[in-house]
Formats: sequence, structure tokens, C-alpha cells
Amino acid sequence: MGLIVQKFGGTSVADAERIMAAAQRVVKTYQAGNKVVVVVSARGQTTDELIDLAYEVSDNPSTRELDMLLSTGEQVSIALVAMAIHALGYPAISFTGGQVGIITDSYHTKARIKNISTRRITEELNKGTIVIVAGFQGVDADYNITTLGRGGSDTTAVALAAIMKAERCDIFTDVNGIYTADPRLVPEARKLSRISYDEILELASMGAQVMQSRSIEFAKKYDVPIHVRSSFSDTEGTLICKEGKEMEDIVVSGVTVTKDEAKITIRGIPDRPGQAAIIFHELAKKNVNVDMIIQNTSANNLADVTFTVSKKDAKEALKTAEKIKEEIGAREVNSDSKIAKLSVVGIGMRGHCGVAEKMFSALAEEKINIQMISTSEIKISCVIDESHAERALRVVHHAFQLDKIPSANLVTHH
Amino acid sequence: MGLIVQKFGGTSVADAERIMAAAQRVVKTYQAGNKVVVVVSARGQTTDELIDLAYEVSDNPSTRELDMLLSTGEQVSIALVAMAIHALGYPAISFTGGQVGIITDSYHTKARIKNISTRRITEELNKGTIVIVAGFQGVDADYNITTLGRGGSDTTAVALAAIMKAERCDIFTDVNGIYTADPRLVPEARKLSRISYDEILELASMGAQVMQSRSIEFAKKYDVPIHVRSSFSDTEGTLICKEGKEMEDIVVSGVTVTKDEAKITIRGIPDRPGQAAIIFHELAKKNVNVDMIIQNTSANNLADVTFTVSKKDAKEALKTAEKIKEEIGAREVNSDSKIAKLSVVGIGMRGHCGVAEKMFSALAEEKINIQMISTSEIKISCVIDESHAERALRVVHHAFQLDKIPSANLVTHH
Repeated sequence: MGLIVQKFGGTSVADAERIMAAAQRVVKTYQAGNKVVVVVSARGQTTDELIDLAYEVSDNPSTRELDMLLSTGEQVSIALVAMAIHALGYPAISFTGGQVGIITDSYHTKARIKNISTRRITEELNKGTIVIVAGFQGVDADYNITTLGRGGSDTTAVALAAIMKAERCDIFTDVNGIYTADPRLVPEARKLSRISYDEILELASMGAQVMQSRSIEFAKKYDVPIHVRSSFSDTEGTLICKEGKEMEDIVVSGVTVTKDEAKITIRGIPDRPGQAAIIFHELAKKNVNVDMIIQNTSANNLADVTFTVSKKDAKEALKTAEKIKEEIGAREVNSDSKIAKLSVVGIGMRGHCGVAEKMFSALAEEKINIQMISTSEIKISCVIDESHAERALRVVHHAFQLDKIPSANLVTHH
Repeated sequence: MGLIVQKFGGTSVADAERIMAAAQRVVKTYQAGNKVVVVVSARGQTTDELIDLAYEVSDNPSTRELDMLLSTGEQVSIALVAMAIHALGYPAISFTGGQVGIITDSYHTKARIKNISTRRITEELNKGTIVIVAGFQGVDADYNITTLGRGGSDTTAVALAAIMKAERCDIFTDVNGIYTADPRLVPEARKLSRISYDEILELASMGAQVMQSRSIEFAKKYDVPIHVRSSFSDTEGTLICKEGKEMEDIVVSGVTVTKDEAKITIRGIPDRPGQAAIIFHELAKKNVNVDMIIQNTSANNLADVTFTVSKKDAKEALKTAEKIKEEIGAREVNSDSKIAKLSVVGIGMRGHCGVAEKMFSALAEEKINIQMISTSEIKISCVIDESHAERALRVVHHAFQLDKIPSANLVTHH
């Protein structure tokens, strides 16, 4: 008899009908002979509504009191899910994060789990009870209620699966699984049956719709297989797991495009040591997260540095770049927010050449100019003009034949 | 520096504006040099909305899960009140019932407080912090969340005031205080500046609009002065306290009328011992609460028993009475739900005669027939026809000159 952790997101428990549907899924897993721990998020828009309430009484609510407030969202959900399971005739009991001993540090609204006491959960599971745990929350050493930040319920689910040595952690959400590309942009995109932790981390911009990086990193560390699947259908989703031999034969797993970055270039930087350090030190001081960085030196001993930042940080980054330009005596600063970043990801590309070439050729054939390139061991990213984003995604998806079944999806070995 | 407990009911924290007003009251008390513990109820209709949610997923929700659900209402309120006090620039911290160690028994939805650990509250008060505690809730020995039933926030406030030896417990509500009669029915009704615990307990049907009997019993036991006052104005309310010498000079404190009872009569009961026991044992078995009981014997050795029950229990009571009639061989059963119960209450009537006479005369002058009479040491109740209820209330209020200042409000000593 195995233990399975099942997590239901906000849309999966938004109303009574969906709560009943979630309860039925849980019961089905229980009836199959499994012990089941259920982790639930706040219903639908509850968290946003609670935040609105807070800002009605305070411009700057204390994070401790925000956690006190927000944690009620999940508490409502767990009680309702337990009642729904009872209504189906099965034993269930709900617990807050504090009640099952999810102990965190004291960084309110972004706490990290330090320890989980499994005594109470194990006791109930051994009695044959389905255990419902509030996601997103814990308590610190003084029993102050804390929350785990965005995607916190996934973290709760994965952490419980890790510490309870669960067979699997099911993440029920509003998508069918992980696709080779966003199916809204690439109709022929194919659902992946498996993907590795590293790939899903690299596909962050795609994966972010499904799970936050933090919970995937946790799953990777403790080797918890995650099954991402739809709460609205019975079809199999995507298994996120550690890479297997067969996965390495698949060169590219997915393509993704994001338009949420802007590009800033500082031109004519005197080419002496330490200039890059100055630039990125100043940006870090302003809390600007830099993604891609490229630098090249022109003939007259002047360097150009280009980097991308998220669009929301672009204004601050530009201001900082202008200031740095003055300090280091660079020539000019340009910025462009009409860019897109196209990435191909695949653990298989480590063992294969020609991936970059195939990607660049596909773009060249379509006369799409590449502005920046950056690579990691399992990812190649190109910055292109924003207007080409969707077309570029489709041609690269097609070039790697990602709509075909995986065995056909190999580039030539060189 | 004294300690004052201030309790705000649901209407007093219904929206952001009222929460700010409540916060201002608390701060004013704090600025006056007091330590302040604030007890808060769920906002406005929150509890009813949560109950509706429960019944959407289950016809018969488990009481443990109901408590898990309902306790979130107060948790939302305490966070918002703490934020509001912060916004005014004062230190405040919110706690759930469990966090301040309000330990109850395990009777979910109607738990009783067994113990309160004051350590955490005292620590924060000594730091100069305003402490906000969620009303209505506690935890049992296993840290399951419990709720205290109707009026539970009052119980929390009074219990905290008792154990912390507070100077006073302020109950902020939507009425100005306790009146000699319901001001909606008797425009000349006068607000009482003081009333004894015993009187307010007898005036239950009037007092119920303000506080539940249970919290008043608690206040009486621990001698906690309660100041019932409006959260919408600065006028003094009514102090509920133990009776003083001066209070005994006031014969009658208030008059009240209620239409929520029905009368049932079993006629022609063979007059032998044990018949009354059979009747009220059967009613108790059906969970029917009986209020007034009168019995008299007619010439032919047959007795008539009349009793009143709350209107909601009338149908069940009538059915039971019919069954009893058959069993004991009584003649007939009548019922009448068009009745009103008029009561005068006052600790002073213990030392004075003529109260009953004055009440009966006032009704007789108005040709209002009295159907039943029942008396306690500090209360006289008459059952009359429902159609006379408001008129009877006014004439009796006038007869005892309750609109006049208390010193003029004495009946003749016999």
C-alpha cells in the first residue's frame, strides 16, 4: 500500500462542484488501496480578495498580519474538502500547517520550511483516514503563522511527499500537463509524457504556468516524482522525474518564447578590467534581476555590454545604466523592450551537436534576425524582435519535429 | 496602569471604515494609559456565508470541520484590526485562540473553555503592545480548533477579562446599552446606567440582543464588570455588575415582552403522583425546552397542566403531548401559539411587596386578560394574548414609571 500526495490548486477547488470533483479523485486513489495526503490551495480568487481587504485598512500591512490573514484561505479549503470526502462516505481529517508541524523560519510571506513533524499525519493515515493539509502555510518556532510565498502550496505538497517518502506527488491543475510548446501558440504542440527536473527548471517561463521553480528544485533534491495533470479530465499528464537513459535520446524536449524581458546596451565602455563588475554590482544593489549578458570588444578598445532584465525592472535598470555610463565614461545607453526570448531545452542536447545550428538555420530560413545568443548545458536562448515571436516558436518547434513521437525526434549524430 | 478588555462584535468590524473606527477606540483607551486586550468577532455576515459554503458540499458537515471552517472568520478580523492599529501608528499583534492557549473541551461547535494560558498575552502587554485575540475559538488538548457556540466572542472577552483580572470588559455592539424596555416598542424607554448580573440574566429575551446568558454567568462568577456600549457613538452604555445597595432601591429595572413561545395544555389528567414527571421526561427526551409550567387540580380529581415552549419546538411538543395524553389517559390537548410573555425584572422586588399587584392592575385597567403567571425571586412573568403584547409592555413600563430617573421609581413599601 503506497502513499500518494495529491495537490489541488485554487481553480480546482473554486466552487462546491469542483470541490466535489476533487473529493471524488481523492476517493478513487484511496479506493485503489493507497494512503492519501491531500494538499489544498485557497479557493479561486480568495487570496487576492484577502489582500484587497488588507490594503483597505493599511497602505503597508505588516507581513506577520498578512500571513495571519492569507492563511485563512487554505483553511477554508481544507475544511470544505474534508466535508466533501465525508459526504462521499469516506474518513477524512483536515489540518492547518501548524497542526501538522510544518515549521518554517520567521520570514513572513516568504518563509522556508525548516522541519515537518509527521507524527500526526502518520497516526491518521494508519487509522485509514485521508489527511487534508492546508498548503502554503506553516508556523515559526513561536507558533506565529507564516506563508511560503508564490507557489507555496506546491512546495507544501512536494515537501510532504519528500518527508513521507511518497510514491508520487500529483499536482492537479488547470492544464493537461507540460507541452513541447505553448499549445495556444503552437497548435501541433505535443504533451510530454515525461520531462526531467532540469528541463522543467529551464523551461521556467513555460513551467511557471504549472509549478514554481522552488518546488521543482525541492522535488529534484529529494527525488520526488511529480505528476502534473488536469483536475478536469482523466487523461494522463506529464511526469516530472529524474532523467533516465531513454530521456537522453530525446535531444530537445520543448521550445518556449517569452516577451517579458527588455534589452539594455551600454556602448563604448573603456575596455579595462572590472567594468562588468561595476555594472552588475550597481544593478544588483537596485534589486534588478539580470537574465542574459553578452559582451564583445570592438576594434578601438571599447566594449559593448548588452543584458536583459524583466520588463517591470526595465525603467530602474535603464536609470542605473545611465548613471553607470557617466561613472565609467561609456559612450551611450540604448534600450529595447520590443524583444522576445526564444529557448529550446533538452537534456539530450548534452550528447548531441547540431542543436544550435538547427535552431539558427530555422530562424534564418524565415529571415528572423538573432540579436543575442546565450547557452547553458541543456538550453539555447536567442533574443529576436518581438514581432517574430510566435512565428519563430512555430518554425523551431517544427524544425525539431516536436509534434512527432519522441523516437523520430532525433537530430543527426556528428 | 489598568488592563481593559474591549470586544467588538461582527457589525463593529463589518467593513474597512468600521474597522478603522474600532481601531481608533482601542488606541484612545491605550493612549489613556491602559493596557488593552481586544477581542474581535467575524466580520458582518462572514459566519453565515461560511456555513452556507459548508452546506453546499455536505448535508451534514462534521462539527470538527465546521469549527476549522468557521474559525477563519475571526482570524480574518484580528489580522485586519491589527493592521488598522498599525496604520494609526501603534503597536499591535493578533493571535488566534490556539496561539494564546485558550484550551477547551472537545465538544466542537459548542466547546467550553477549560483553561487559558496568559503567558503570551502578558509578554506582549508588558512590551506595550495592544493584543488582538480572535473571539469564539480555542483548541482542544490535541490542538483541534474548537468554537464556543453562539455569543462565543463575548465568552472569550469575559473569560480573558476574568483570568487577566481586567478592570473592565467593554462590549462594543450596535445598541447603546440596556434599556428599561425595547425602545422600538416603548419610545419613552430609558437607558439603564447600571444593572445587576441577575437582572440581565432574567431579562434574557431583552439581553439576548446584546449578550448571551453564558458570558454573563461567567462575568458574574468572576465578578467582571461589563460595559455594554455602542461602537457608533461615544455615549456611556450600561454597566453590568454585581448588585450594590443603591441598586436594590430600584424595584423594577426593566420590562420585556417576547412572542417566541407557544402554550400547550393537557386537560383532564388523572390526579395521581408521577404524571408531571412522565410529561416532562418525554419532552426532555425530544430535546424540547420547556419554559413556564403551571398545574392546577379541578374538583373531579382531574388535573390540567399548561406549559410554554419556544415556537420552533411547538410542533414536536404538541405531537409528544398527544402521545402522552394517550398513555396517561388524559382528556384533551390544546395549544395556542398566539401568546406573548410579559416580564418585569428587578432585584429590588425582593425587598418590596406590591410589584405583582401593580403589574396585574395595570393590565386589568387595560382589560388585558392574564392566561398564566409565573414568578421568580426577581421576575414576574404573565402570558397574555399576542395581540396585546406591545400595549401591555407600554402600560406596565408606564405603571412602574421606568421612564423617570430611578430615585422616583419606587413602589410603596408595605
